[in-house]
Amino acid sequence: MLTRTPHLFDDATNVTPGDSRWQGHTSDDYWAFVGPFGGATAATILRALMDHPQRAGDPTAMTVNYCAPIAQGAFDLDVRLVKANRSSQHWCVEMTQGSSEVSTLATAVFAERRPSWSQQQAAYPTAKAYEETLPFPPIAAPWVKQYEFRFVEGEPKRGGSGAPDAFSKLWISDRVPRKIDALSLMAMSDAFFARIFHAKRELVPFGTVSLTTYFHADAADLEAEDTTRVLGVADAKIFHKSYGDQNGELWAPGGRLLATTTQIAYFKA
Amino acid sequence: MLTRTPHLFDDATNVTPGDSRWQGHTSDDYWAFVGPFGGATAATILRALMDHPQRAGDPTAMTVNYCAPIAQGAFDLDVRLVKANRSSQHWCVEMTQGSSEVSTLATAVFAERRPSWSQQQAAYPTAKAYEETLPFPPIAAPWVKQYEFRFVEGEPKRGGSGAPDAFSKLWISDRVPRKIDALSLMAMSDAFFARIFHAKRELVPFGTVSLTTYFHADAADLEAEDTTRVLGVADAKIFHKSYGDQNGELWAPGGRLLATTTQIAYFKA
Repeated sequence: MLTRTPHLFDDATNVTPGDSRWQGHTSDDYWAFVGPFGGATAATILRALMDHPQRAGDPTAMTVNYCAPIAQGAFDLDVRLVKANRSSQHWCVEMTQGSSEVSTLATAVFAERRPSWSQQQAAYPTAKAYEETLPFPPIAAPWVKQYEFRFVEGEPKRGGSGAPDAFSKLWISDRVPRKIDALSLMAMSDAFFARIFHAKRELVPFGTVSLTTYFHADAADLEAEDTTRVLGVADAKIFHKSYGDQNGELWAPGGRLLATTTQIAYFKA
Repeated sequence: MLTRTPHLFDDATNVTPGDSRWQGHTSDDYWAFVGPFGGATAATILRALMDHPQRAGDPTAMTVNYCAPIAQGAFDLDVRLVKANRSSQHWCVEMTQGSSEVSTLATAVFAERRPSWSQQQAAYPTAKAYEETLPFPPIAAPWVKQYEFRFVEGEPKRGGSGAPDAFSKLWISDRVPRKIDALSLMAMSDAFFARIFHAKRELVPFGTVSLTTYFHADAADLEAEDTTRVLGVADAKIFHKSYGDQNGELWAPGGRLLATTTQIAYFKA
C-alpha cells in the first residue's frame, strides 16, 4: 500500500480531535500579511466539524467572523453542536489561543441533501479555457503561492486610471493539484484578492470581518465533478465608510455551481 | 408632550433588557405559517443588541441561523459580547424557549463606520415610481399584511408555463409607514417571498435556514435618507437537493444601496 504524500493544504488545516475542544496550528505555508490566510482558518474550522463523530450530512452554510488577529502557533477550537434536527445540524465554533479571548467565531449548518427539483438559475460564466490562461505571478504573501490564479478578466493592476472596477473572473486551483472538496471550496471562497485592491488599483490595509459561504454540491456531487480547479467570479457592490462587500461564485469546469460566497471587509483608503 | 403611538413592528420586536439574558415574545401580527416571520425574529435579536448598554457602533453584518421552530409565546435571548475591539464588536445571541434547546443562533458585527473612500459599484435598479405601482394583494400569512409589497417585476404567479424565473424587483414598506432603520432593514431582508415560490410558480414547504445581511449605511446615513420604503431586488442562483439560495439588495429611493442580503433555504419540491 502506498503512503499518500499529504498535501500542504491538509497539513495546514489539520486538527487534533477532542470532545468539545479540538486543537490546530497555524501554517507558515498559508500565512498572509499579518495572520493566517482567512480561508485556511475557515477550512480548519470546517475540518473539525467534518471530522467530528457527531457530524451528520454535508456542509450547507458556513459563516466565519474574524474577531481578532490570530498569532502564529497553536489554537483551540471550542466545537459545539447547538441543535440537531432530523436532517440538519447547527454548529458553533470558537477559536481561542491560550486565553478566553475569542479570535474567530463561526457557525455552520450541515444537512442531508435529499433529491429534489433541481434548477440552476445562474448561467455558467463564459471563460477562456484554463489551458489558454497564464498563472498570475505569485506575490509576497506565502498563502498566495499555494494557489494558482489564472485570470480570465479583472487581473489586479497597480496604478493607471479608469472607472473603479472590482470584477474578476479567474481559474483557481491548489498549486499542487488537489481534488476539490468542501474544505478547499471553503478556503477558495476567501481566496479572491480583496475587491478594494482591484477597485483602487493599489494595496491598502484590509481585513475580512465576516465571510459566509453556501455549498450547493454535496460530497457525492463533488466526487462526480472530480476536478482540481474552479472557475471563480467575484465582484463588489459598495465601498462605504471603511467597509466593502464581496460576492462570489465558485464553478466546476463542467458548469455546475458549487458554492456562492459573500463577505464584508474593513479597509483603510 | 405627545405620546407616540408605537408601531406594530416596534411592538413585535420589543425586548426586555437583562444583562446577558433578554426576553422577548412572538407577535401574532408578524406570524408566518408555522412560526414567527423570520425577519421579525432577526430584528428582535438585533434590537437586543442595539439596546445593549455595551453596544458601540452600527450593525455591519448579521447572520441568523434558524435552528428549530419557534413556538408562540415568550423567549429568552442569551446575549454575549464575544470580542470587543477598538472600533468593532462581535456578538453572539442564542434564542431559547423554556429549555436549553436553541431555536435561533445569531452572530453580529457592529462597527464604527469611519469616513473613507466611497464608491457604489452596483447600479441603482431602474424601476417604475412607487406611486405608479399597485400593492400586492395581502395573502394568508399575518406578517405579509404588515408590509406593502409593490412589484415592479417578477410578481408571484401561480401555475402557467415558461422558464423558471426567480427574479423580483419591488417596493417594500411597512403597511403603516415607519422610517427605515437598521431594524426594519434587517426584517425586510427576509421579506422577499421564497424564491422557490417564484421559480416553481407554486407554494411548497419552505424554511429559511441561514440568513446573512450586510449593512452599508450607518444610523447617520439612514437618518439622511429619511425614507419609509426601499426598492428591493432578489434573485436565486440555484435550487439543488432540497436547498436553494437567495441574494438580495435593499435600496433607498434616492439611489443609495442600504443593505445586501443572502440566505439559504430548505424546500420540498
